[in-house]
Amino acid sequence: MTVKSPEFVYICDPPSKNAQGSLSGLRLGVKDLFHIAGIPTGAGNPEWLSSHHQPADVTSPVVSALLQAGATLLGKTLTDELAYSLEGLNQHYGTPTNPKAPNRIPGGSSSGSAVAVANGSIDIGLGTDTGGSIRVPASYNGLYGFRPSHGAISCKHLVALSPRFDTVGWLTRDLPTMKQVAEVLLPASTESSLSHLVVCNIEGVESWKQARQQLLKALTSQFLSVKYIDLSDEQLTKASAAFRVLQGREIWRVHGPWIEQQQPNFASDISDRFTWCKSLREIDEEQAEISAQEFVNFWHSHVLPSDNHVLIIPTTPGAAPLLDMSASAQLKYRNRLLGLTAPAGLTESPQINLPYLESEQAPWGVSLLARSSCDRSLLTCVHKLDKIFKL
Amino acid sequence: MTVKSPEFVYICDPPSKNAQGSLSGLRLGVKDLFHIAGIPTGAGNPEWLSSHHQPADVTSPVVSALLQAGATLLGKTLTDELAYSLEGLNQHYGTPTNPKAPNRIPGGSSSGSAVAVANGSIDIGLGTDTGGSIRVPASYNGLYGFRPSHGAISCKHLVALSPRFDTVGWLTRDLPTMKQVAEVLLPASTESSLSHLVVCNIEGVESWKQARQQLLKALTSQFLSVKYIDLSDEQLTKASAAFRVLQGREIWRVHGPWIEQQQPNFASDISDRFTWCKSLREIDEEQAEISAQEFVNFWHSHVLPSDNHVLIIPTTPGAAPLLDMSASAQLKYRNRLLGLTAPAGLTESPQINLPYLESEQAPWGVSLLARSSCDRSLLTCVHKLDKIFKL
Repeated sequence: MTVKSPEFVYICDPPSKNAQGSLSGLRLGVKDLFHIAGIPTGAGNPEWLSSHHQPADVTSPVVSALLQAGATLLGKTLTDELAYSLEGLNQHYGTPTNPKAPNRIPGGSSSGSAVAVANGSIDIGLGTDTGGSIRVPASYNGLYGFRPSHGAISCKHLVALSPRFDTVGWLTRDLPTMKQVAEVLLPASTESSLSHLVVCNIEGVESWKQARQQLLKALTSQFLSVKYIDLSDEQLTKASAAFRVLQGREIWRVHGPWIEQQQPNFASDISDRFTWCKSLREIDEEQAEISAQEFVNFWHSHVLPSDNHVLIIPTTPGAAPLLDMSASAQLKYRNRLLGLTAPAGLTESPQINLPYLESEQAPWGVSLLARSSCDRSLLTCVHKLDKIFKL
Repeated sequence: MTVKSPEFVYICDPPSKNAQGSLSGLRLGVKDLFHIAGIPTGAGNPEWLSSHHQPADVTSPVVSALLQAGATLLGKTLTDELAYSLEGLNQHYGTPTNPKAPNRIPGGSSSGSAVAVANGSIDIGLGTDTGGSIRVPASYNGLYGFRPSHGAISCKHLVALSPRFDTVGWLTRDLPTMKQVAEVLLPASTESSLSHLVVCNIEGVESWKQARQQLLKALTSQFLSVKYIDLSDEQLTKASAAFRVLQGREIWRVHGPWIEQQQPNFASDISDRFTWCKSLREIDEEQAEISAQEFVNFWHSHVLPSDNHVLIIPTTPGAAPLLDMSASAQLKYRNRLLGLTAPAGLTESPQINLPYLESEQAPWGVSLLARSSCDRSLLTCVHKLDKIFKL
């Protein structure tokens, strides 16, 4: 075991290759939440690693499928502690360097997979996305990043965060590679044509207005109809608040017993969030459930009323925050960020980040979002747009 | 809501049809463990239904995928109480009649889906299989029944029994329909050729010796090699004991709180099993885990040493037991049955029941079993054999 840079926590030496197939020649990095038989799973926290220190005796079916399809496993990649952060700072193992913007955070929690794809070490970065952990680092590192519909891809044999919202996805530098992986992992469901574009107006994201105009100039001709929808601060705050409570209650059910027993050393912001999870009451969860259901109803009646609609939305409020951002600014930023990432989780929808924008000379991603189970339709739609937009 | 026969617990009137696709024209029944938005989920127990009596507000992604592919939903089908039985007797809702052997049990827990497919009411019976709940009724009703690899198909939005072992599968009358559903639901992973046949010798299943000889006469030419392996009573008993404890501990974690609070009225054998689950200790689970791992190691080194091997094994010890079997005989039979069904669960492997045998003038199924993630390879292999063996 050789550790060479923070994005990798475990290097397969020699790289592991089992079969020939459609992914032959592509190098794979696997976020260190997935179990791979014979390798310990660390989940970004040294005490997790030491208290579960035996090598796993099972392999995630997603990893098995990628290896069977010919991918070469280079190693396991860094995750934020128990995947409960969107920043990519890890106080124990260091912060992988965002190669597109070295003075900015890489984003997380799939920080290692994103950085290793962005700096060219690997071609496929396998990750998980509960509250944005693929989409956010994809936006910050200028990558394609896909969060599938809930239930489309197995979450078996990985360290869960909040099973209700946990999804398995991946990051790539280009769309063809993204689609090759989709061919291996996604169920072969029927496609619909995403012919109606929904463009959101978002309060408080000024740069989105300009970016959107540029995008729309070229986009409009590709759709039968284009409509605008307002997503108010109030709506997005309501969505993110409901998401956080539902996620938080589940996180405590999943990780509370271990945290209480082990009292592990977490970064202070992560530790604060776990403490907050513990403080949540059943009544908070019940109210969040009602609020979530109202948001889902609004979404299905007003935002994406059919399987033929696709939404365009900024993935993050802008480019990655600077590494030296203050803790209070971070907290405020996190709330705005979750307003943009929570809708996919609450509505169980597929979302793909596309590296089409820049802000402050750093990458900034835009997303397409379709209705649940329309994963293949979404990728086909992106294929059409990618030819026009690729920077 | 009209209820016409015990196999259906909920009829969609009119049948629900959303889309055109590869499954257009095929009638679907869904085991009443899966959530479908707008319909209550009953899980085979009236107190479950009444304490969770609101219609579900989510739909299983598997059901969504089948509807998107054009299947017509006829209704929801009966399950044994919380799916914790292999018999198909339900004291609350009645026992669906096994159309191939009306004096015998239908098998469960996917009893309604199996019977409705066997009697021609539906073409696709969606079910779950934790410890045999698709394979067993498939064997008893003369059907094709598929249990996929763990993680191949989502278990989201259904009433869990033991998530470690829960799988979603389906029953059909013919192989083409089985494969059409597989095309919609299975990930498009790479195939290997199952060119090496492993034939098991099983102590105590006398009729298997004869049946096997007949099968092998025609089979041998289809494989590069054929080898025999002994599965002793001791090995199978060890496997089923480990399976039952691991399943039992998890069942109590999943359902214990509700059972303690609700004190529901269960059939006496099911109630006894839940009480047994409650009595299991952590140390029992730890020992079962070791025992399970030993069995998995044996399986991967001696039974199915590579992705090119396929095992042939009787699905059940014989045809369905008679309806008037005594409780003590049932208990003994259940132990032998679990010895045959536990290996797929412990090794996370795909298994398909094929309706090729008869015993006592009733259907008796034989199974093919491959290594985990080789679901498509298994179905392709069956395709080759089906032409030869179909009764």
